[in-house]
Amino acid sequence: MTDANKAVVLLSGGLDSATVLAIARAQRFDCYALSFAYGQRQAIELAAARLIAEAHQVKEHRLLEIDLRGGSALTGDSPVPKNRASTALGSDIPATYVPARNTVFLAHALAWAEVLGAFDLFIGANAVDYSGYPDCRPAFIAAFEALANVATGAAVNGGGRFTLHAPLLQLSKADIIRRGSELGVDYAATHSCYDPQGPRACGGCDACVLRRRGFAEAGIADPTRYVTSDLQVATSHG
Amino acid sequence: MTDANKAVVLLSGGLDSATVLAIARAQRFDCYALSFAYGQRQAIELAAARLIAEAHQVKEHRLLEIDLRGGSALTGDSPVPKNRASTALGSDIPATYVPARNTVFLAHALAWAEVLGAFDLFIGANAVDYSGYPDCRPAFIAAFEALANVATGAAVNGGGRFTLHAPLLQLSKADIIRRGSELGVDYAATHSCYDPQGPRACGGCDACVLRRRGFAEAGIADPTRYVTSDLQVATSHG
Repeated sequence: MTDANKAVVLLSGGLDSATVLAIARAQRFDCYALSFAYGQRQAIELAAARLIAEAHQVKEHRLLEIDLRGGSALTGDSPVPKNRASTALGSDIPATYVPARNTVFLAHALAWAEVLGAFDLFIGANAVDYSGYPDCRPAFIAAFEALANVATGAAVNGGGRFTLHAPLLQLSKADIIRRGSELGVDYAATHSCYDPQGPRACGGCDACVLRRRGFAEAGIADPTRYVTSDLQVATSHG
Repeated sequence: MTDANKAVVLLSGGLDSATVLAIARAQRFDCYALSFAYGQRQAIELAAARLIAEAHQVKEHRLLEIDLRGGSALTGDSPVPKNRASTALGSDIPATYVPARNTVFLAHALAWAEVLGAFDLFIGANAVDYSGYPDCRPAFIAAFEALANVATGAAVNGGGRFTLHAPLLQLSKADIIRRGSELGVDYAATHSCYDPQGPRACGGCDACVLRRRGFAEAGIADPTRYVTSDLQVATSHG
């Protein structure tokens, strides 16, 4: 019934989760990718998720529609902050925080994993070059893994122990991009921007700023199409 | 922004969650009831949830549609077990277990609570007269509360501490029914059966067996309409 090689991978269509999928595949997991339509402004990322899931030959890509409206700039309640100072990134919780989003995503991933007989969950949480979301920190990852192991029939019956993999947790964005590039991730297919204008990224939201800085610091050409081509990149590391 | 008097209450439409709502109201919380359409056989319980929410004057009753198909008799994958021996109830995990259901429900409740500025969640989990679900045990309740307090901006920013109330956790079904009756719960409006036949309860599934036994032991007339009226009730307590 259980299969040690199956993993459920949260796939937003962004740079981080695409890299995580490539890492899970490199670890020889059969991957089941899970994406969510939750009312996000950047629904274009779901098209990116489909392309990435296909490119990395997942066994199945499931899209769940859920309702997480309210309380976030990402679901349309307020403007997306732009061009915040580098020092602000990660030091407070910005308007783009979606209440309990990763808790909800991981809960659904856990439910699917139990049905599949999988004991490995992957999430692209990152606590270095990140927006300061509480549900991207090591304490959150540890608490969810602990929950999974008391919440489920699979764990309680002795069938196995759930592992929540967050392989990007302590990597800089540049390190993530380097690792993904080694593994063949096509970053042109990924989407990070919180406030896209058609197919182009805004260049100024936290996600764009972190992404641009990451490519610059990694010394890898950024394939992203931004609204203007003459963006300045302020680096904060090294 | 925050309001100590708001609570999110999971409301299935069953006997336990109706009692929990009455308890939360008796504790003077403004209640926000949350129900889920998750592909359950017993969708009739959602109509019950509406009646109960109204009777207990919730501030808002939200119904979320989510996909939890697969891996459970409750979502149509296999037959609902009937007339299991009393000794089997609670001693193993039955086919009606829905993988990670309470984790998913509470994750959504947490998301809504954070939007509302509520720090109190209520769930009707019970670990005495129950079906043996892992996500109804004290260890699960404690693990989810710990998660909530690292997962959310509200908790991390020092806005407050989440409390997950499970006031039925250590009560027998008879005690639950006595408590609810004192608080004016109209149990005729509640629905427990896993395999209803029209408006009537089957009488033989775990939920019906526990319910029938609870009323018998409480010495309170069971208002439930069962498919047959001459059911024997086997009591296991006292």
